[in-house]
Amino acid sequence: MSVTTQSTIATFGGKLLKLAHDSSVLGSEAKFNLFLPPQAQKSKVPVLIWLSGLTCTADNCSEKGFFQHGASKHGIAVLYPDTSPRGIGIKGEDDSYDFGTGAGFYVDATAEPWSKNYKMYSYVTEELANTVFEAFKDQLDSSKVSITGHSMGGHGALSLYLKNPGKYKSVSAFAPISNPLKAPWGEKAFKGYFGEQDWEKKGAEHDSTELLKKWKGGPLDILIDVGTGDNFYKQKQLLPENFLAAAKEIGQEKGVNVRFQPDYDHSYYTMATFADDHVDHAAKYLFA
Amino acid sequence: MSVTTQSTIATFGGKLLKLAHDSSVLGSEAKFNLFLPPQAQKSKVPVLIWLSGLTCTADNCSEKGFFQHGASKHGIAVLYPDTSPRGIGIKGEDDSYDFGTGAGFYVDATAEPWSKNYKMYSYVTEELANTVFEAFKDQLDSSKVSITGHSMGGHGALSLYLKNPGKYKSVSAFAPISNPLKAPWGEKAFKGYFGEQDWEKKGAEHDSTELLKKWKGGPLDILIDVGTGDNFYKQKQLLPENFLAAAKEIGQEKGVNVRFQPDYDHSYYTMATFADDHVDHAAKYLFA
Repeated sequence: MSVTTQSTIATFGGKLLKLAHDSSVLGSEAKFNLFLPPQAQKSKVPVLIWLSGLTCTADNCSEKGFFQHGASKHGIAVLYPDTSPRGIGIKGEDDSYDFGTGAGFYVDATAEPWSKNYKMYSYVTEELANTVFEAFKDQLDSSKVSITGHSMGGHGALSLYLKNPGKYKSVSAFAPISNPLKAPWGEKAFKGYFGEQDWEKKGAEHDSTELLKKWKGGPLDILIDVGTGDNFYKQKQLLPENFLAAAKEIGQEKGVNVRFQPDYDHSYYTMATFADDHVDHAAKYLFA
Repeated sequence: MSVTTQSTIATFGGKLLKLAHDSSVLGSEAKFNLFLPPQAQKSKVPVLIWLSGLTCTADNCSEKGFFQHGASKHGIAVLYPDTSPRGIGIKGEDDSYDFGTGAGFYVDATAEPWSKNYKMYSYVTEELANTVFEAFKDQLDSSKVSITGHSMGGHGALSLYLKNPGKYKSVSAFAPISNPLKAPWGEKAFKGYFGEQDWEKKGAEHDSTELLKKWKGGPLDILIDVGTGDNFYKQKQLLPENFLAAAKEIGQEKGVNVRFQPDYDHSYYTMATFADDHVDHAAKYLFA
């Protein structure tokens, strides 16, 4: 379970650690980044987990997302996992940008040949969390964790939050794939990871819109930003309206705030712009 | 002289324009980015020119520098030129990261075969400026321009400022190559662009430390950030102490503020951290 530090980078008064460990769940070395704000030198800080989208590594958001700005101000650590196991050697794992490498979809695959390694759900919710909280037990408060993410990672954040009531203090998302069962990306990923027979049944357990319909975890306060200029929104990959409709269905319309940002696109330019808002959102609950 | 818009990206309430034009000075198509803050929709805004370092294009700082954050707040446009002409076809132009493509050093080369195209000094000070101020005459105030940059671009910002008293309202820099005549990077570039005979004599006209010794332009207020963890600082490529010594020599020690940032490195993580300070610095003079 030991974590090795590959480099330490000073940023926003704190340190961005580029880390690696051997993941048993994924069966590969896994890299991740951890931003420790300056306050972590004095006392344990809460943690915001950022889940990235398709094709990303831990570095994209660390470099371009601007979350260190707000996290440093509030005194929140930010954990940036990778988006899949890497270098497993499965035939086809690198064939497309939206399945396999860089596209783990934050599920535990049940279909061969993916089921042995493509377990990003367990990786994020259990193994990585346990590893990080053990390795940084003096700096991180494991009882105060929030989650957020973008696109596939927005799907990750929402679904992990909804599947684990009370585990995360808050959730927010950028351009999340909110209803993967109804989106081309989601259908492709779920068919691959769960198999052609089971993909809808198993997929429903990881579909945030379906999960929301069944939500019994209390009043929600979910912040979502989607750009009206986002090509994937236009191509109906994100379907935030379905998520909103589910919220309405369970009487939690006020608990889901989808902000349609005029002209903003799917890129990190959008994350950078609204990162402070999402960190503020998490801070409300992490310091409550 | 016409500018074509390749894309428009919403960011920090404004627009990042990815632009291109045919540069006669460089003899190639040249790309550049221009951030227009929201205030530019109502009235002309001042401009901060950002000059990038070795290997960069206009995109690196646009994506990772976070200058849009402060620029949006103050109402300042940010102009991001490229770092050299591209695709000229000179033998050897792509051989090293620190000479030729991506390494124009903001000089006008006098030695063959570089002298026809490698004229980044004239490109930035004249052609690009004229092009941009003409194409965006309703949004930009050409009488209010400041300059900043990183590494080779820090050298660019300081030398352009010192060579043109009054042209720029202020200058700042990140990890600038402050005394290229005494740095391996500078010696290599100047020998290549000015020739083995002339490189020291011609180089002195572009060496910020030499230029500072001769400064007659009035009281200075230069902000420079250098990371103590910066490997190029440790390898004596930057030599800020020489620049400071020159300032002392001319009685302007108070006019040059070199902040040695503990552990910070040469990367954009450092720019992102202190970008607001540099934009604030420029704002003081752009809105004076």
